[in-house]
Amino acid sequence: MSDRLSLMDNLIASKTLNQSAYNTFTEPPVLMAAERAATAFDTRSMTHFLDGGAESTAVFEKIMLDFERDPVFNNDNYYDLSKSEVRKLTMQRIARLVPMIINDSEEDSVKRFSILGICDMSTYTRTGVHFGLFFGAIRGSGTTEQFNYWIGQGAGEIKNFFGCFCMTELGHGSNVAALETTAVWDEQTDEFIINTPHVGATKWWIGGAAHSATHTACFARLIVKGKDYGVKIFIVPLRNVADHSLRAGISLGDIGKKMGRDGIDNGWVQFTNVRIPRQFMLMKYAQVDRAGNVTMPVFAQLTYGALIGGRVNMVADSFQVAKRFITIAIRYAAVRRQFAADPKQTKETRILDYTYHQRRLIPLLAYTYAMKAASDELNIMYRSSIKRLEDATKSSNPEKKALAGAIEDVKELFSTSAGCKAFCTWATADIIDETRQSCGGHGYSGYNGFGQAYNDWVVQCTWEGDNNILTLSAGRALIQSCLSHRRGKPIGDAVKYLQNSDSLKTATVGDRALDSESVLREAWQVVASNIINAATDKFTELTTVQGLSLDQAMEEISQQRFLAAKIHTRQHLIRSFFDRIKNYPYKTDGDNSIREHLANLAKLFALWSIEQDTGLFLHAGYLTPAQIDSVGTHVTHLCKSVRDQAIGLTDAFNLSDYFINAPIGNYDGNVYKHYYEKVNRANPAIDSKPEYYESTMKPFLQRGEEECVDLSELE
Amino acid sequence: MSDRLSLMDNLIASKTLNQSAYNTFTEPPVLMAAERAATAFDTRSMTHFLDGGAESTAVFEKIMLDFERDPVFNNDNYYDLSKSEVRKLTMQRIARLVPMIINDSEEDSVKRFSILGICDMSTYTRTGVHFGLFFGAIRGSGTTEQFNYWIGQGAGEIKNFFGCFCMTELGHGSNVAALETTAVWDEQTDEFIINTPHVGATKWWIGGAAHSATHTACFARLIVKGKDYGVKIFIVPLRNVADHSLRAGISLGDIGKKMGRDGIDNGWVQFTNVRIPRQFMLMKYAQVDRAGNVTMPVFAQLTYGALIGGRVNMVADSFQVAKRFITIAIRYAAVRRQFAADPKQTKETRILDYTYHQRRLIPLLAYTYAMKAASDELNIMYRSSIKRLEDATKSSNPEKKALAGAIEDVKELFSTSAGCKAFCTWATADIIDETRQSCGGHGYSGYNGFGQAYNDWVVQCTWEGDNNILTLSAGRALIQSCLSHRRGKPIGDAVKYLQNSDSLKTATVGDRALDSESVLREAWQVVASNIINAATDKFTELTTVQGLSLDQAMEEISQQRFLAAKIHTRQHLIRSFFDRIKNYPYKTDGDNSIREHLANLAKLFALWSIEQDTGLFLHAGYLTPAQIDSVGTHVTHLCKSVRDQAIGLTDAFNLSDYFINAPIGNYDGNVYKHYYEKVNRANPAIDSKPEYYESTMKPFLQRGEEECVDLSELE
Repeated sequence: MSDRLSLMDNLIASKTLNQSAYNTFTEPPVLMAAERAATAFDTRSMTHFLDGGAESTAVFEKIMLDFERDPVFNNDNYYDLSKSEVRKLTMQRIARLVPMIINDSEEDSVKRFSILGICDMSTYTRTGVHFGLFFGAIRGSGTTEQFNYWIGQGAGEIKNFFGCFCMTELGHGSNVAALETTAVWDEQTDEFIINTPHVGATKWWIGGAAHSATHTACFARLIVKGKDYGVKIFIVPLRNVADHSLRAGISLGDIGKKMGRDGIDNGWVQFTNVRIPRQFMLMKYAQVDRAGNVTMPVFAQLTYGALIGGRVNMVADSFQVAKRFITIAIRYAAVRRQFAADPKQTKETRILDYTYHQRRLIPLLAYTYAMKAASDELNIMYRSSIKRLEDATKSSNPEKKALAGAIEDVKELFSTSAGCKAFCTWATADIIDETRQSCGGHGYSGYNGFGQAYNDWVVQCTWEGDNNILTLSAGRALIQSCLSHRRGKPIGDAVKYLQNSDSLKTATVGDRALDSESVLREAWQVVASNIINAATDKFTELTTVQGLSLDQAMEEISQQRFLAAKIHTRQHLIRSFFDRIKNYPYKTDGDNSIREHLANLAKLFALWSIEQDTGLFLHAGYLTPAQIDSVGTHVTHLCKSVRDQAIGLTDAFNLSDYFINAPIGNYDGNVYKHYYEKVNRANPAIDSKPEYYESTMKPFLQRGEEECVDLSELE
Repeated sequence: MSDRLSLMDNLIASKTLNQSAYNTFTEPPVLMAAERAATAFDTRSMTHFLDGGAESTAVFEKIMLDFERDPVFNNDNYYDLSKSEVRKLTMQRIARLVPMIINDSEEDSVKRFSILGICDMSTYTRTGVHFGLFFGAIRGSGTTEQFNYWIGQGAGEIKNFFGCFCMTELGHGSNVAALETTAVWDEQTDEFIINTPHVGATKWWIGGAAHSATHTACFARLIVKGKDYGVKIFIVPLRNVADHSLRAGISLGDIGKKMGRDGIDNGWVQFTNVRIPRQFMLMKYAQVDRAGNVTMPVFAQLTYGALIGGRVNMVADSFQVAKRFITIAIRYAAVRRQFAADPKQTKETRILDYTYHQRRLIPLLAYTYAMKAASDELNIMYRSSIKRLEDATKSSNPEKKALAGAIEDVKELFSTSAGCKAFCTWATADIIDETRQSCGGHGYSGYNGFGQAYNDWVVQCTWEGDNNILTLSAGRALIQSCLSHRRGKPIGDAVKYLQNSDSLKTATVGDRALDSESVLREAWQVVASNIINAATDKFTELTTVQGLSLDQAMEEISQQRFLAAKIHTRQHLIRSFFDRIKNYPYKTDGDNSIREHLANLAKLFALWSIEQDTGLFLHAGYLTPAQIDSVGTHVTHLCKSVRDQAIGLTDAFNLSDYFINAPIGNYDGNVYKHYYEKVNRANPAIDSKPEYYESTMKPFLQRGEEECVDLSELE
């Protein structure tokens, strides 16, 4: 009885297992070694597969050692730090990190951040605000002269300089175009006057503002001669470099406690008629000259393509963080015994051997692998789109066809990255949460890292494009692609399957094997295509028959747009996982040993995904009710089969105990020993009395009766 | 374009809204007042409906004032407290709380805890460990003499006494029957020797052990004359009452940082041959006499019925906490503007007016109302079962038929409460999470309470029966009920619909209205019945055709059991919500004004629930694909319609700003002002430099070049 669970049920049973047969404290590492020995593929080859080759693994391992060996990155007491302690530590780490980054190639620096995101999301972001957002803005939107000027000020290496990014305001986050801070050009002095018109326009959530920043990239409305040209970016000094004192007109403060990432000094900033030289407006695209002539960019839609890199990185982050927690949960489940599946057993069952526990964890392992494939594919797409865009816009009078092609690429990148960012960051939040629950009470301990990571992680679902809004946007793009296809126009690779809408509409699995790759690819194209076409039909009906405006119609079908983007993105992950397995350059026997296990993961991911949304497949008539039942059976069997390789498949993530930073997830499986020792190291048992015993506890526990009024003298 | 979202998209648009038309800082309270004025029902009547009548509302309001007025319960700086600060504060609050509880009736004390759970989950639990777990164990499992003895020691009022509950061990949580701590009877001294055999058997997670407890209810294996009688409960003194020093043989420590509820001093305890008098074993059921004769109870399965109260309370807690966060999110959404749904608008759209935002929040409002109905029904069921059980077991030779009836009642209570506990605690975790996301970045601020509450809340999904294990157990009970029905035996009220399995199997909605109460009740019975019957068929096949043992077969169909319990429980919530609306004693015009709005909520909840699991309804053939689409349309329309009453429906929860404790959710809707002020109150802007500027930042920012080796002298 696998779930003899409740206090009552158990006490009723008063079941006596033969406890002498094993010992909860000494047995686990033995079990773990045996599990590991049963790995039927070359773990190292799997690591190379995940990393993208042996050379890449070598880089990752070098970077991991950089952190692991540095005492400033020691994480043994990380979970007990107060907000002020972690903020200071974060700055100490930035001082160690910056020289590493400066020496990295651009590619290696992306790898370094992705590794840093596993062990310290605060340092990741606090540094990333400067290099990614502030410096990225200068690089993306500044002229070459401006770029060189700010490099000269130290912006390239955080020296006498720390940049932050004043975009969001108290009253405006997602809708950047409606920001209320103003930048009014003063013709006489040739300056911009930056001003916060009212408290609701206070810059808010500004990472680095409270403690670190000397300068900011401020988003403000460009107003010249009374005309509002919309939001542009202005570099505004906040503090004097010499002594970190505030500059005139700058008010700022600390926004204090957050759900997570307390190492980042998020703050608020108000500008009170702060004057900056005209030349501090970033002028790669829009320009203002000395006479107050404003030139608006011809190719405005190409301006900010570089900023999409953040989203692309967040898909990679999703994989990095998910792999840590699925590793912890699977290792723990492999050695944790609880209950006996069969009353005749002398030992309790290991929880990873329970059907239901497998179904909770193993599909999430598959999901984690799938995210890696999607992330790499997105990264390639990103690099090629940006390259094509840069090539097409090199000249001031670009060739039209090249430009149109580049724009199509970027559009597709926007919508694909939006869907992947939203659903991968959500998936990782779910994975942290579900893996925590799968570790029972010990998942709730601060020292096993789940709580901290969840709190640090979930902001990824909100910032750089709120997931819901991104998804709705991706859904709109899908409908637009469908309309384009119907009008005979070309559509991007990611939605090429819409060209087969008609045949997909009537497809059924028939008597083909449910778990064949071709069926699974097709199944997801069928439901994605159906949903997108149905939403497009509805959109067309609303705009033509019912006379709604395009915007009104898009608003009306929000739910359908959301669903379309969700299913398209799942289809995308499944397809890219299968593609990755097919196209990887297998070279050695070790490489060949991983194929079968990867195929199992990909099939499991696709089938389990069907199980999450059976209604779509029945609605499409692609699967019959009996086939839906059969999908469930396949999932159960695949979970059982992958379970036997689960330790190897998590070992392949190649995380040392430093990055795991959770004693119940350590490599050697000695979970209780490490956990017990960690808790006692963090909380030395010196005194049985709390420090408030005399002041608070004793007067309460040893209290007398409440004082009563004695009325006898009043008689 | 409701989702002109990304940085890029927006900058591309450079859309200029007429910002002078409103002001993010001053407009919100005006909007909120207008929303409130549009309430079309009597809010006070709705509060009475929720509270269960005007008298009950009066009690709740008195209790709320007790907390709100007490300076020790001031929560203004609650989110910034360190672990050690919150632990001390929690003890201070316990000293204020205990006299209140002692003066409460039992019913009022349940209400008091349920209110306390909204504003301070740590104090709730740290006190509840004593009164609910420790004291509950003595009351439930001690003899009358034992009960009186411990009352005499101060256990009834936490005086010279603080009890904790040493049940779980490092290696054993859910499987209480396999705990490894031993209680060996010493014939010579007539004592029990309590011992922790190895580190894995260390008592772990023990709330109150680290700082507070003087005594514990220790779960240990009763061993008499070499025979193991299974786990029983022993009262073991831990600390000397006079000076709180540890008693001989007791080792204990602090388990330190947790994901949440840091106000509770959870600890670990090891017993090294600790001797206690034989009479300290709780002997209401199992007994050991001076000669070492052990009497095991005849009605063991009735022993621990009282402990189920914890689960029943957790369903009520789910409602209490959910109502706080759905209120915050809806109030914020009613005044927050972002983007313009129509480009011609002069003002941005309030986010509660977006179709998709309504679909995110309004069904969760309906869910919250549904949980209240289910919670109250469960509470009634609990009280009547316990009463019946007590009546049936009053005599030492109880009447068989009365006993059998009582046992059936308790069984049904176990399984219903298991499902409700699991799915309501999960629902509330989801509600906190989704409402946080719906508030965008401001949801991530520590001062709006989401993070703290999520961290404090989610342990409810793990303790007192892990939700997954409870669900599997509830699923097993459903299959057993189905088997009973097939064998012609009586089954409980909650599963009475299984008697119509055959007709439900072939039912279809036909041309009846999809949103009629009778259809919605039937629809959920159809899918629940189908799933339970299918699982039962599979179980029977496995045990008869395939020859599996009962345990093996139950293990094999874990997934089906989980699904059965999930769907049955959803059906149960929907049914109890409709019942509550039908059976409430509407008395006044105000009372009558709420009916229509309650009906909308119930229908929305049922229809939205169908939308979450469309596959089941298509699989059953109850709905056609076209009808599934129509369900979606109904949900959208109901969301729009309930949206107009959403402020009234959340006001009816009757929470003051003290309990809301989130400036963006304050009653007056003045979200930005309260939020801005709260952040600045908590983080006064005194100095622009962090305290680590001189030590850490300045040396880094103003660093020179890295020292280079000058090799010239070596030439």
